[in-house]
Amino acid sequence: MSEKLLGSIEAGGTKFVCAVGNFEYEVVETVQFPTTTPMETLQKAIDFFRKFDVAAIGIGSFGPIDIHVHSATFGHVLSTPKKGWADFDFVGTLKKTIDVPTVFTTDVNSSAYGEYIKGAAREADSVLYFTIGTGIGGGAIQSGEFIGGINHAEMGHALVKRHPRDSGFKGVCPFHGDCLEGMAAGPSIEARTGIKGEKIPIEDDVWDTQAYYIAQAAYSATLTLAPEKIIFGGGVMSRPHMIELVRKNFVMINNHYVKTPPIEEYLITTGIRDNGAATLGNFALALKEFIKN
Amino acid sequence: MSEKLLGSIEAGGTKFVCAVGNFEYEVVETVQFPTTTPMETLQKAIDFFRKFDVAAIGIGSFGPIDIHVHSATFGHVLSTPKKGWADFDFVGTLKKTIDVPTVFTTDVNSSAYGEYIKGAAREADSVLYFTIGTGIGGGAIQSGEFIGGINHAEMGHALVKRHPRDSGFKGVCPFHGDCLEGMAAGPSIEARTGIKGEKIPIEDDVWDTQAYYIAQAAYSATLTLAPEKIIFGGGVMSRPHMIELVRKNFVMINNHYVKTPPIEEYLITTGIRDNGAATLGNFALALKEFIKN
Repeated sequence: MSEKLLGSIEAGGTKFVCAVGNFEYEVVETVQFPTTTPMETLQKAIDFFRKFDVAAIGIGSFGPIDIHVHSATFGHVLSTPKKGWADFDFVGTLKKTIDVPTVFTTDVNSSAYGEYIKGAAREADSVLYFTIGTGIGGGAIQSGEFIGGINHAEMGHALVKRHPRDSGFKGVCPFHGDCLEGMAAGPSIEARTGIKGEKIPIEDDVWDTQAYYIAQAAYSATLTLAPEKIIFGGGVMSRPHMIELVRKNFVMINNHYVKTPPIEEYLITTGIRDNGAATLGNFALALKEFIKN
Repeated sequence: MSEKLLGSIEAGGTKFVCAVGNFEYEVVETVQFPTTTPMETLQKAIDFFRKFDVAAIGIGSFGPIDIHVHSATFGHVLSTPKKGWADFDFVGTLKKTIDVPTVFTTDVNSSAYGEYIKGAAREADSVLYFTIGTGIGGGAIQSGEFIGGINHAEMGHALVKRHPRDSGFKGVCPFHGDCLEGMAAGPSIEARTGIKGEKIPIEDDVWDTQAYYIAQAAYSATLTLAPEKIIFGGGVMSRPHMIELVRKNFVMINNHYVKTPPIEEYLITTGIRDNGAATLGNFALALKEFIKN
């Protein structure tokens, strides 16, 4: 009999990453493919998992999604502008063929869980994970449970106070204009400067402006959730100077008001290499579900 | 033998309200007195509780406070500017005389718990309570547990986006200037207009400006916590038109992005009369602790 494995689906808006791993969360095999139509994309995932004896699957998906197991539309993608995916029954479609215990959450919640179980927050009781890339998202955990009452978090769209240096820029969020995502996601840099981010030197003030908004999001979350660690992932934060700028702005904004752990231990970048936090989180969520069943 | 009763201390910066109630959370007797020195004030509370057979006490205190039972300074008031209270061992002092199970949390957490158990959120699984008065504070509950990792929440100091109509005002927060409390607590109205709030007619734009900031706090919390209800208490929100203005601004800010319950059911004022939410919450927390012991 073949070894039982854990499954992971990182369902992104542009690509899917599927993986199977053992009960120590070590990746056994992985595959990735572009996100096209729902049925075509899910079929590729199903074809991959069918090759293994999968015990349970953890899914971290782009959103908005319905994560409430008692809801009539549990497991569906909700009102996404992504063509064909709105109202798609993600979990139901998967379960028709691969009927194993399944956990369905957001991509950032998966990453947060990975960091919590085995990454930079493995010794913490609470953690917040932000991804700052093409979009911005946040997921948080307190005592092993995801934060989110009737919906998953949507922290990417937090409102931010404008930097005086940035008064002319309208922001790029189609819903809010100058919310966090509108002001600090990757595309805002090019929209603001007319230059691609990777061509702008690290000394340029625009990075500090962007860090000011990211620090505000971290600050608001500190005041609301008081997590033990705030971990940043995503393309924008892979530039090593960015975490320094975010820390500097956070300290300035806080102005000695709220007590946090030392800033170098509190605001940090991912502790899991190769962007593996979400896969690891999905494995751990899958195992938790498998044990429950 | 006398009836066992539950105790409540609402420890505010200007006054203390102590109460005892039965196990149905009905108030049996209550007393209030000004907050003076810690020892004098606590002695009055002790004198009150000594008259009864108290099973357990719930305390909702002004902050910042240490609420972590495993901390060396658990039960202490922390770095408050209030004279004599910084580093005061609140719970330890009380327990020297009244050695019963005790719960120590923030005043807004107590109110949130009261609303959750028997108020406007009694049928909800998650709730956020804001008080908007001389200061601003927020407390949140998800599945029976308070939100807050290594600290209690400090939502009153969230950063807010400025209203164009309000560009000249610096805000009154000594730490952040124009944070939520600096822009929307009671004293900001007089600082902005030179006129006491109660003398400003409800048609004045200043109320809408203030509601814009309060709505932002509710919006940020929606994106982070997604509570089932957001409940507002405090002097500023006791003006009946304010909740309407907050709802209007919330809908405008959201711009159809995130799905919430119907706005009249989602953003509401307290469901417990006579400002009784904190007392009720303290009774319920006391009972929970009594049962555990």
